[in-house]
Amino acid sequence: MRYQAIVEYDGTDYCGFQRQREEPSIQQELEKALEKIGNTQVDVTGAGRTDSGVHALGQVIAFDIRWSHGADALQRALNANLPVNIAVVSLVETNKNFHPRYDAKKRSYEYHIYNGPTRSPIRQRMSWQVSQPLDMRWMNRAAKTIEGEHDFATFGQPPQGENTVRTVYYARWLRRDDMLIFQIEANAYLYRMVRSLVGSMKAVGDGSWCLEEFVDALEARDRSRAYQTAPALGLFLTSVSYD
Amino acid sequence: MRYQAIVEYDGTDYCGFQRQREEPSIQQELEKALEKIGNTQVDVTGAGRTDSGVHALGQVIAFDIRWSHGADALQRALNANLPVNIAVVSLVETNKNFHPRYDAKKRSYEYHIYNGPTRSPIRQRMSWQVSQPLDMRWMNRAAKTIEGEHDFATFGQPPQGENTVRTVYYARWLRRDDMLIFQIEANAYLYRMVRSLVGSMKAVGDGSWCLEEFVDALEARDRSRAYQTAPALGLFLTSVSYD
Repeated sequence: MRYQAIVEYDGTDYCGFQRQREEPSIQQELEKALEKIGNTQVDVTGAGRTDSGVHALGQVIAFDIRWSHGADALQRALNANLPVNIAVVSLVETNKNFHPRYDAKKRSYEYHIYNGPTRSPIRQRMSWQVSQPLDMRWMNRAAKTIEGEHDFATFGQPPQGENTVRTVYYARWLRRDDMLIFQIEANAYLYRMVRSLVGSMKAVGDGSWCLEEFVDALEARDRSRAYQTAPALGLFLTSVSYD
Repeated sequence: MRYQAIVEYDGTDYCGFQRQREEPSIQQELEKALEKIGNTQVDVTGAGRTDSGVHALGQVIAFDIRWSHGADALQRALNANLPVNIAVVSLVETNKNFHPRYDAKKRSYEYHIYNGPTRSPIRQRMSWQVSQPLDMRWMNRAAKTIEGEHDFATFGQPPQGENTVRTVYYARWLRRDDMLIFQIEANAYLYRMVRSLVGSMKAVGDGSWCLEEFVDALEARDRSRAYQTAPALGLFLTSVSYD
C-alpha cells in the first residue's frame, strides 16, 4: 500500500531532508520511524530536498508499507515514533505511481526576516535578523519583477541536466507583527534560489542596491551577480501542489 | 555605576532565571558575560524568578559595574558575549538603589496554546499543544472572574512569609493566527500561578469543567482544587512596570 503525507519540521538540527551518511536528516528519521512500525526497511521519497537548517510546514512524502489499521492509526503511530521536531500533519492512501517530486506542479516557500535592532532569542531559530531598516515597498517592487517566466541563472544552480528557466506564479513581501515575510510560488526552483533572491531583495530594501541593479542582475543570468544568499534558518517549504 | 536592562530569552535549555548549582541558568549566563566584560565578579538581580523552561520577552535586571564607554556599548558588549538564546534588548543607567523585584509595581505574562489536532514542530518549543477543541468564549468568562483582588491560594503557593492575596489588573484570552493567547497583568503572583490558572481555564475551554466549577475552585482557596498546571514551555514573562 502506498501512502502520501504532509510533514512539518523544525530543520535546525538536521542536515536537510535528504539522507546523508553521518549526519541526521529528516528522511532518515522518517525511515527509522516507519521501519519500527512496519518491521521492515521502508524508502521515503520527498517532494523537495530542503537544505541544511531549512524548515517545512508542508513537505510532501510518499512511501510503501504493509499496514492494515487505516491511515489515521498509521499517522498516530508515526507521530509517536518521530522526534519532537518532526511531525506528520496529515496522511492518506495514494495511488501506487504517485511520486511527490515528479508529480508536483507548484511549490511555495516563505522566508522570514526579523527586522529589529538587536537579535531576538525568541525568534532566532526561525528568522534572519536584519538590523538595518528595510523598505518593504522597494522589496515588493523587486519581487514583482521576478513574476512570470524568467531565466534565473543569477539566483541559483540547476539540478544536473536541467535549464535555468522557471515560472514564478507570485512573489510578494508582507508584514506579520514584527516579521517581514516573503511568499513565493513557482513551478520549480534552482538550488538556493529563494535564499539568493531574498538576499538580493534585502539589498534593495536596505538601499545597498537600487531596483535597477536588481533587474540588471536578473537579466545578466550570471550567478556571480547575485548580492548575497540569505541564511537557511529563515526559510520554510510551505506547500506542494499536485493536479 | 548601576544599570537596568530588559532581557529576552528562550528558556528551553535553562533551569530558570535563578542561579542553581550544576544547572545552566539565565542569571549565571548574564553574570558570566558581565564578568568577562568587567574583569570582576558581578551580581545580577532579576525582577522575576521564572521557572525552568519559561521564556521572557521583558525580564528586567539590574547590576553594578565599572564601565566608561556608555550604555549602548555595554549593551553591544553583553550581546556579543551572551549565547544566542539570551539577549539584552535595552539597557540604561539607573539610580543606585533601584531593585528590579522590590520596586516592581506590575508584571505581565502571556501563555501560548497551540490548539491543533497534531503536535507542531515549528511551534513546539514555545507553546502548549492542546488537541481538544477549546471554546475561547468560556475561557474568557473564567478569565473575567479572576480580575480584581482575590485570594489565589487555589492556584499557587506564596513566597515564604507572604499571604495569597493578589490583584489582577486584566486577564483575557485572544486568538493570534492559530494560537490562543492568555494575557494577564497583576501586582505580583504566587508560584506557578499563571500556569495553574491556564490549566484550569483550559478545563473550562474543553468542557471538563463548567464555569461554576472554576469559580468554586477559586473561592475554595485550596491548592488541591486547581485542575492541572499547564507546562512551562508556553509561558512568557512579557513586561515589568515601575513607577
